[in-house]
Amino acid sequence: MSEHENRARPASATAMIHPASSSVWSLHPQLARDAAPAGDLALSRVLVMNDATYPWMLLVPRQAGAVEIIDLDEAQRAQLMTEVAQASRALKDVTGCDKLNIAAIGNVVPQLHIHVVARRIGDAAWPKPVWGATPPRRYDARELELFVAAVRHAVGLA
Amino acid sequence: MSEHENRARPASATAMIHPASSSVWSLHPQLARDAAPAGDLALSRVLVMNDATYPWMLLVPRQAGAVEIIDLDEAQRAQLMTEVAQASRALKDVTGCDKLNIAAIGNVVPQLHIHVVARRIGDAAWPKPVWGATPPRRYDARELELFVAAVRHAVGLA
Repeated sequence: MSEHENRARPASATAMIHPASSSVWSLHPQLARDAAPAGDLALSRVLVMNDATYPWMLLVPRQAGAVEIIDLDEAQRAQLMTEVAQASRALKDVTGCDKLNIAAIGNVVPQLHIHVVARRIGDAAWPKPVWGATPPRRYDARELELFVAAVRHAVGLA
Repeated sequence: MSEHENRARPASATAMIHPASSSVWSLHPQLARDAAPAGDLALSRVLVMNDATYPWMLLVPRQAGAVEIIDLDEAQRAQLMTEVAQASRALKDVTGCDKLNIAAIGNVVPQLHIHVVARRIGDAAWPKPVWGATPPRRYDARELELFVAAVRHAVGLA
């Protein structure tokens, strides 16, 4: 777009045509590829990782440019903790897991995202962390649909 | 101790002689072996992992029996988030790291503890997580003392 076109538009329209600018949050394409959406909490988009080896949720705060937890302000961090607890209870209820693993790593995908993973004693990576342990094994479509529905219900989104 | 001896003691003394009971918190011996104490925040003991490969703090909520973050009550979880942010800023200030990795895993040591790890692009495990990636490389005593002092200062404990 030329500078002329830019100047010719009203401010609101200019904002509309920059959906990928740093002030507008959108889900990182790698997360969109790896996971299925389960709805939005007050701060975070809830996703379900498409890896049938471990029941695995992601919370992605819809805050443009956030990479670290400390990039959120104090109220957002408090809300994130509330949502981590909500997701943890939901995943534990749905799976009856032995342990929860919760982490903000982001060495590969910089957009702030929090992993909430249900672990079972003796699962494919146990007792090691899941990241990079086993190649993702995709759910079949119906399985994924059912798991997303169960998570949505347990987390209070349906 | 016989039941008779137990009954013969006043209640307060009975409590005194059960320092390892579930109602009294003490640091898990594995964490005590792997890390050096740096002081206590309102909720958590602050530790520095004795692994010179990565600058690495632990926060251990002094809440007996807590295994998962959701074993803490709401006020404790809010305080934990405050302390995670405090530790994160401290470690970033001390190290100038490229990325923070924050995690509650606990598959091996069940006592709730939160890892706050300073990562550099190109460090020994990059971009993988640090857990189980490289055998711990102990600091020499003076190095550890200096790093603990820097952490204590940055986190507001000295």
